[in-house]
Amino acid sequence: MSYQSSVAQDSLAAAQLEMAGNPSLALRRPFDPVAHDLEASFRLTRFADLKGRSCKVPQDVLSKLVESLQQDYSQQDDQFMHVAIPRIGIGLDCSVTPLRHGGLCLVQTTDFFYPLVDDPYMMGKIACANVLSDLYAMGVTECDNMLMLLGVSTKMTEKERDVVIPLIMRGFKDSALEAGTSVTGGQTVINPWCTIGGVATTICQPNEYIVPDNAVMGDVLVLTKPLGTQVAVNAHQWLDQPERWNRIKLVVSEEDVRKAYHRAMDSMSRLNRIAARLMHKYNAHGSTDVTGFGLLGHAQNLASHQKNEVSFVIHNLPVIAKMAAVAKACGNMFQLLQGHAPETSGGLLICLPREQAAAYCKDIEKQEGYQAWIIGIVEKGNRTARIIDKPRVIEVPAKD
Amino acid sequence: MSYQSSVAQDSLAAAQLEMAGNPSLALRRPFDPVAHDLEASFRLTRFADLKGRSCKVPQDVLSKLVESLQQDYSQQDDQFMHVAIPRIGIGLDCSVTPLRHGGLCLVQTTDFFYPLVDDPYMMGKIACANVLSDLYAMGVTECDNMLMLLGVSTKMTEKERDVVIPLIMRGFKDSALEAGTSVTGGQTVINPWCTIGGVATTICQPNEYIVPDNAVMGDVLVLTKPLGTQVAVNAHQWLDQPERWNRIKLVVSEEDVRKAYHRAMDSMSRLNRIAARLMHKYNAHGSTDVTGFGLLGHAQNLASHQKNEVSFVIHNLPVIAKMAAVAKACGNMFQLLQGHAPETSGGLLICLPREQAAAYCKDIEKQEGYQAWIIGIVEKGNRTARIIDKPRVIEVPAKD
Repeated sequence: MSYQSSVAQDSLAAAQLEMAGNPSLALRRPFDPVAHDLEASFRLTRFADLKGRSCKVPQDVLSKLVESLQQDYSQQDDQFMHVAIPRIGIGLDCSVTPLRHGGLCLVQTTDFFYPLVDDPYMMGKIACANVLSDLYAMGVTECDNMLMLLGVSTKMTEKERDVVIPLIMRGFKDSALEAGTSVTGGQTVINPWCTIGGVATTICQPNEYIVPDNAVMGDVLVLTKPLGTQVAVNAHQWLDQPERWNRIKLVVSEEDVRKAYHRAMDSMSRLNRIAARLMHKYNAHGSTDVTGFGLLGHAQNLASHQKNEVSFVIHNLPVIAKMAAVAKACGNMFQLLQGHAPETSGGLLICLPREQAAAYCKDIEKQEGYQAWIIGIVEKGNRTARIIDKPRVIEVPAKD
Repeated sequence: MSYQSSVAQDSLAAAQLEMAGNPSLALRRPFDPVAHDLEASFRLTRFADLKGRSCKVPQDVLSKLVESLQQDYSQQDDQFMHVAIPRIGIGLDCSVTPLRHGGLCLVQTTDFFYPLVDDPYMMGKIACANVLSDLYAMGVTECDNMLMLLGVSTKMTEKERDVVIPLIMRGFKDSALEAGTSVTGGQTVINPWCTIGGVATTICQPNEYIVPDNAVMGDVLVLTKPLGTQVAVNAHQWLDQPERWNRIKLVVSEEDVRKAYHRAMDSMSRLNRIAARLMHKYNAHGSTDVTGFGLLGHAQNLASHQKNEVSFVIHNLPVIAKMAAVAKACGNMFQLLQGHAPETSGGLLICLPREQAAAYCKDIEKQEGYQAWIIGIVEKGNRTARIIDKPRVIEVPAKD
């Protein structure tokens, strides 16, 4: 194993520069490169040409492979005949592997991507929350270990590296701590683009995870975070780019964009852990997290894995305030209202018994102070998902 | 979790193109791009500007971070007071984390790097063997799960991608199968450079791993694979580059280089699993695997972790035939005889009781058909390692 590179400077102190002595995200000031002795023009997001979904290989190409992997699994199932737990996870958010030790199984996931916000500390937090989210989507609330995967951009000066990498690592480790787990190692390499990600691993009893294949007719769909993170992140970058900004300035103010950007960072860095815990309390029938393939992409994937002949119909789209208008002003570029806009570290999309859904939403808001929304229903069908023609857009928050 | 990208073509058949119907590596033909409908000039190694150690962040920078991580651990040790097993692994090959479940612990490692051979299938096997090697270095012989991490180069044509990526994946998965484990998922992104790596995870009883801190005066050091993989890989690339080739053609023939290259691929793709199993049989006092920081770098790291006041003295350097001469002809470029030449998926460097070492070497040769060598001794000292002034170079194999 190799270990993350960094200078041993006090990254904690550095990480607190924007905290104004207050760790609450709400009061966190924007990342100020100058305060860290970097050029005012420093932008972390410039260390990669791709962001969000664009760094993913297309879903159809992936699904082809999933088939070929699935075959390998059927073979392996034979080896696991003596084990009660089937191998699952292909095409789902985590892999679940039966272990040699009494009834336990290994739930594991990995993810990494490129910088999409300019605050290195927040980028680290978001990357960690994003990796953990795959566990939470399976209803797993305890993570036993994390590894960090970092690529240090060849284009970074030594000074930039020595400021940015410790901040990213600190953010990642702070989120891990918040999740009740820790980072015991990882790998860092030099790479043209800056890459950030990790591995999350849990060893648990089968009753600790929820196989997301149990939706039934009459269930409703709950979403635990608003959409529009990618739109907000892009709009914020356009503040530096007059020609792009001119395309949206008629529908949104600079302050709207800054607020949306901070809401997006707040949302992306939020753990889906309580959402996962409540899935057990309210008997969720399955869940996935909304990330690179957008709400509809992940909804379709979840629908395709259902045991029952059901399909998902989505009526409501909660979106970070003003970002729906921005998306419209950009024509088809984001496909936000079509459900294709990539999200990073998005919310959980959960199938809940109708009579439990309202209580779930009320409970999560009580515990977290964040809203969740009933966005659709589960009806009889052929394991597909769709958004109705004129979905209702819910501005989040309703007003400032 | 995302999944490896690939077209669902029959990568197995493709992988067998060079097999001549015989899966034995010895009889494997060189990778032929044309046989896969690629340009004759296709070279996988051209999809990254860095190779071997150069993709690593310098060891001194890493060690600084290791300190800062170590602090986090001491804190966590408090949380684990009730657990008999201490958290270890920082600066070692794996992390070991106590679990919530009866006395079990999680042993985990990750590694990824850039293509260093031009045969995609072999590259996949080498990457897998390299990740697993960290487990084997801790004496762990069973791997419960693997994840694959792939970066598809933005410079690859779609055709190249569709040929190369499935071959890499097949090689990786074949090695995992050979190791008695399987790949249940991973992540694939698009990246300027092609990257290949993975995660290896084991859940085991404390008696299944060997904490590598128990060397005592009088022990001897055994190495299970020859050095010089990096030299062989570079020399082979120089066959295409007259100006580089001219620097070494006086000391080595083209056939020598091709033989060395295939020995290197054979060696790098070989699992250290039997070497790990025999560590238990012959009461090894500790071990590490020789990779990016070279023999001396890893020997020094292992020495620094010893409980007793010992140091390591290395007298013998087993080197792939003719590669010592090539290294000398290149002046200080490789620092092979100084112990600094990076290796990929190198052998285990093991501290064994003197009276057991010969039996260990005989046993591994009997089981694997590959030699291991006693290369040094453990004496009283300050936890450092050194190579004597005029080490004896052992040509491997002695003759053809």
